[in-house]
Amino acid sequence: MKVKFEDLKKEFKRVLISRNVREDLAEMSSGLFAENDLDGVHTHGSLRFPHFISTIDEGKLDVNNVAEKESGFNGYEVWNGNNGMGNINATIAMDRAMELADEYGIGLVALKHTNHCMRGGTYAWQAANKGYVSISWTNSYPLMPMWGGLDNKLGNNPIVFGIPRENSEHIVIDTALSQYSYGKLQQYRLNGEELPVIGGYDEDGNLTKDPAAIEKTKNVLPIGYWKGASLSFALDMVGLMLSGGNSVAKVDAQNKGNFDLVQVFICMDPSKNLNLDEINKDIDFSIEELKKSKLVDESRGIRYPGERVISVREKNLRDGIEINDETWEIIKNL
Amino acid sequence: MKVKFEDLKKEFKRVLISRNVREDLAEMSSGLFAENDLDGVHTHGSLRFPHFISTIDEGKLDVNNVAEKESGFNGYEVWNGNNGMGNINATIAMDRAMELADEYGIGLVALKHTNHCMRGGTYAWQAANKGYVSISWTNSYPLMPMWGGLDNKLGNNPIVFGIPRENSEHIVIDTALSQYSYGKLQQYRLNGEELPVIGGYDEDGNLTKDPAAIEKTKNVLPIGYWKGASLSFALDMVGLMLSGGNSVAKVDAQNKGNFDLVQVFICMDPSKNLNLDEINKDIDFSIEELKKSKLVDESRGIRYPGERVISVREKNLRDGIEINDETWEIIKNL
Repeated sequence: MKVKFEDLKKEFKRVLISRNVREDLAEMSSGLFAENDLDGVHTHGSLRFPHFISTIDEGKLDVNNVAEKESGFNGYEVWNGNNGMGNINATIAMDRAMELADEYGIGLVALKHTNHCMRGGTYAWQAANKGYVSISWTNSYPLMPMWGGLDNKLGNNPIVFGIPRENSEHIVIDTALSQYSYGKLQQYRLNGEELPVIGGYDEDGNLTKDPAAIEKTKNVLPIGYWKGASLSFALDMVGLMLSGGNSVAKVDAQNKGNFDLVQVFICMDPSKNLNLDEINKDIDFSIEELKKSKLVDESRGIRYPGERVISVREKNLRDGIEINDETWEIIKNL
Repeated sequence: MKVKFEDLKKEFKRVLISRNVREDLAEMSSGLFAENDLDGVHTHGSLRFPHFISTIDEGKLDVNNVAEKESGFNGYEVWNGNNGMGNINATIAMDRAMELADEYGIGLVALKHTNHCMRGGTYAWQAANKGYVSISWTNSYPLMPMWGGLDNKLGNNPIVFGIPRENSEHIVIDTALSQYSYGKLQQYRLNGEELPVIGGYDEDGNLTKDPAAIEKTKNVLPIGYWKGASLSFALDMVGLMLSGGNSVAKVDAQNKGNFDLVQVFICMDPSKNLNLDEINKDIDFSIEELKKSKLVDESRGIRYPGERVISVREKNLRDGIEINDETWEIIKNL
């Protein structure tokens, strides 16, 4: 069914308040969840919300805690998320990274003891809307093997890049370092389809395109095999070194699931050093060049990352957001 | 044959001086090339050097120019490489990023109009040896298609992470975003082998493991298919926005080959905010956990990125570096 953005947000907020979330935090968090649906990213909006509430009900989060600064040296600060809501903490951290970029040209907030921030792209949009370039990532519980191994030792550690544009959609790249998410595996299995490319290991330790076989082992493949494995480990180790929080190995050792994570937020303000008029033209030129490519499939054009978001958002604001009927019922009964 | 490090460096330096490279720059550049051989990375040392000299002979570089600061705002500076030698410029830029990290906790140098810096890991070691965490990358001429396209529009844009360790080998991840380099394709073809995993497109636009077919189209595959394509584009756009230099599309439009590139160097000093004793133990713990993995192939253990470098370096310093006979003859005749 179609649900208006404001109605969706209100419903999320009602549920959060019923879980004793403070009014201002419920307002903010419900908005962040509803905005993911608004942009068509339901996996991190309505489809995720019931699970998120169950983690509150299980006492996994301290919902009324927010991130606080623990130490800082000019452009680089360490913040403690105090086990609060991941989306609220990430918003606070990116805001602070922007303030630091105002003052130092570049700002970095290393956030420890925080939780899943849902859609990483949210915070890149937050920065890009104000003209900042951003790089951010999170670690996670382990769900991919190191290259040469079969036990899950690496996080999918999504990394996000945001490049602001003045008169067009921002460029936002938001990608986990696993070739497929568990959600995608499920989707292919339910559709009775093979994965388009190899996605993980089966029970015999062989690489496979069979989604069900990978769901059994839970051994998802890093992008680019050995390369993505190294990248995942790199992001985890940099995050650990900058924050002093939990590495993927420590998250695993705590045995509490995908909680108590490390996130890093870096913001740069290019306008401090450069005239952006020429640069904006060069970005347009780069996008035009991509679109001039000879196509693999003539019926499918080339899009740049982030291109469709504004049009989806406008359409959903105007016409209402298509929410799965069953999901809507579940949310209303939370 | 075995060549002592100092003899290799002397030979490189002699050749550079013969091309009218200034003495101090020849000293530095020859050392950087020889150190790549010392670490076993011959592709960016002796095997690359003759090609590098040919680009000097063709007048592609201004060998006696070095990078200069063009603008700066506290922790973030833009430098102009003045079309000098890429390895010299990268060393200067990483040094400056470290100085900025001393002052601001984090420092970023965006370097434009520079050239191929050879082995990206070199500069991560440079920073890690002094205790800095670093993230750096370069763009390149286009050699991979955007996802859905068949023309090369994306650079392989190698990205490098350096994580310093006190009593062990630093962790250094240095990875291009292409699944294979052209050099690797050649190697597999000469050995009459298929690629272990899909590496690019054949002439009919099909993905293939045949190295010769990919060498024909030159359409190398990004790691993780659509995912690596987006990551490559992200790094290129962030580099453009921070430096005002050439995007991959502009490098292509200049039609001068793999020259006049953008590189970004980010350094952080974690000791400004954190006690590193606990963190170093946590890094050890993460590495131990990786190594505990059940192995795909019992005869092949798991290594972390950078693990073997120190032992290779020590062995080569002691016993001399194994240099391909033919290559050594070529270098002596340059």
